[in-house]
Amino acid sequence: MKKHNFSAGPCILPQEVLQQAANAVINFDGLDLSLIEISHRSENFVRVIEKARSLALELLGLENKGYSALFLHGGASSEFLLTPYNLMKKDGGKAAYMNTGTWSAKAIKEAKLFGDINIVASSEDKNFSYIPKDFTIPENVNYFHCTSNNTISGTQMKNFPEFDGLTVCDMSSDIFSRQLDFSKFDIIYAGAQKNMGPSGTTLVIVKNEILGKTGRNIPSILDYQVHIAKESMFNTPAVFPIYVSMLTLQWLKDLGGIKAIEKINNAKAELLYTEIDRNPLFKGNTAKEDRSIMNATFTLIDESLKNTFDSIWEKLGINGLHGHRSVGGYRASMYNALPIESVQVLVDAMQELETTISKK
Amino acid sequence: MKKHNFSAGPCILPQEVLQQAANAVINFDGLDLSLIEISHRSENFVRVIEKARSLALELLGLENKGYSALFLHGGASSEFLLTPYNLMKKDGGKAAYMNTGTWSAKAIKEAKLFGDINIVASSEDKNFSYIPKDFTIPENVNYFHCTSNNTISGTQMKNFPEFDGLTVCDMSSDIFSRQLDFSKFDIIYAGAQKNMGPSGTTLVIVKNEILGKTGRNIPSILDYQVHIAKESMFNTPAVFPIYVSMLTLQWLKDLGGIKAIEKINNAKAELLYTEIDRNPLFKGNTAKEDRSIMNATFTLIDESLKNTFDSIWEKLGINGLHGHRSVGGYRASMYNALPIESVQVLVDAMQELETTISKK
Repeated sequence: MKKHNFSAGPCILPQEVLQQAANAVINFDGLDLSLIEISHRSENFVRVIEKARSLALELLGLENKGYSALFLHGGASSEFLLTPYNLMKKDGGKAAYMNTGTWSAKAIKEAKLFGDINIVASSEDKNFSYIPKDFTIPENVNYFHCTSNNTISGTQMKNFPEFDGLTVCDMSSDIFSRQLDFSKFDIIYAGAQKNMGPSGTTLVIVKNEILGKTGRNIPSILDYQVHIAKESMFNTPAVFPIYVSMLTLQWLKDLGGIKAIEKINNAKAELLYTEIDRNPLFKGNTAKEDRSIMNATFTLIDESLKNTFDSIWEKLGINGLHGHRSVGGYRASMYNALPIESVQVLVDAMQELETTISKK
Repeated sequence: MKKHNFSAGPCILPQEVLQQAANAVINFDGLDLSLIEISHRSENFVRVIEKARSLALELLGLENKGYSALFLHGGASSEFLLTPYNLMKKDGGKAAYMNTGTWSAKAIKEAKLFGDINIVASSEDKNFSYIPKDFTIPENVNYFHCTSNNTISGTQMKNFPEFDGLTVCDMSSDIFSRQLDFSKFDIIYAGAQKNMGPSGTTLVIVKNEILGKTGRNIPSILDYQVHIAKESMFNTPAVFPIYVSMLTLQWLKDLGGIKAIEKINNAKAELLYTEIDRNPLFKGNTAKEDRSIMNATFTLIDESLKNTFDSIWEKLGINGLHGHRSVGGYRASMYNALPIESVQVLVDAMQELETTISKK
């Protein structure tokens, strides 16, 4: 029996993608060679990375708009560093950051090595359980940085501040899940291991014209202009993670793209949040208007029911439901590839707990 | 028919490893989940990365000698940057580099951003066709950096200079292929995609006591001390490449370790170089005493025979024999997983060319 996989990341991928990936590890493209033992410069792999790059731009509606799509090494944590390296002026550099959780805080920490960081908004006062609104971004900063979805706390930005300067967004955990005007962003980055593929590669979408203006000597591997010039092949790319990302992006396109998956994601989230609000045994962790469509966090009102509830959902084949170690409780991650049937099984588990308790 | 895969990297891996990797993409450890859709902090994956780290140290004879093994993102090209960041003094930093080919030159380029670089030896004068000897390393440098094997030109360091300071070696293309006293090195790094696994992860072996002495503020993702403290899980690791690397290291251990594979590698190289020297139609590219056991580079004396020779080896199922675009000719990469039978097929092809020509 295939598990109902609510893992927060690395996370569930489409079953057909997993099957294609496994096949390619044995024999790729009918070459009688494994995907992972051929040259990254072979025409077969170049076709893969080019397709992954163009699918990413196409799905985001950013084709022919002056953006490049790169598949880089290093995870989103590397982009915490590449952002200031590529955008913050060498002399008198300033940037504005929103602090909406653990990952924002890590991005801020790295940026501080490069210049003055202005924390324009923070939800740290309430353990990151909401998204700050009504703040202003100073005009003189080199860029504004935000995190669109906070996997650990379970909040999500529904609106983005209007800002005339450069906007950088870490979309690691909700990219390709909902429609946005992506052309309002100058850099979007996302580790692959949520809605795209396995861990080991990071998608970076960057507006070409914003680069090369800091006065810094940037090490090659950290320089977006180098990666753009080398068509994302400055060094040997992470072949397998990029191949699986390409397959997942193709799967999403075949499904109808972001517009289609957004409907499904909204339906999944509504199903679960409705039960969280209805069921007297549970409560949600976050402000209702800021609830993430990707990661629903909730807790048992009576913690003594934990073992009973855990045994119910484990028996039903649910995996990965425990909250992040820094928050506790439960976290249901409902990424693109999670079927609504799995959410229904979780709702069933919550209702089964209610029935069990009422019988006692 | 499985190809005879002489690809320079990503390259051939043991067939049984490919089969296990494909199986894990469908169902890992009997979890009814794919390897690539589970948490990297699950006990099943933590076991994988811990095993990969300990196997690496064990195979190199570096267990309990004050070294850490890390599986990082970014490829060896990232280590070109991490080396100076972690070892070169902030004030008045100096380092000595050997320039033995394209990859050395790239390492030098990045290091120059951090301090004074002294090129203590170079073989650029003869297109990197030999390994410089009889040079001295100044005592006052922060470290000495060399490249043990040059994949493009096909040379290999057989001896390493005696030096009292820190020695850093890029062993991307010959790690785990031959016995050395690895405790003479302070940092060894190697992209996985030769003798270890798929592209997407880099093994770094680092002597703990040498770190934290530069006076630099090092960004977290570039700081070896951070990665050591986080047990190589500072950020989400490249799960699939690390899993396959673990399987390959286990395969090598089961085979008898480096001692056993070195014998096989020497036999493969002797078989091919003997034919290159015997066959009047071919010549080797490099100084005989510096010939690489991993990558044999050679050319046709009469270039007009190229099409005839290419069709002979292609017909025999050989793959990846063309030389690097910067050198031309042929390059036979004979990494650990290449069976000696494949080398025999190549020798057969070279002899078939000779027979074909003599009949004309």
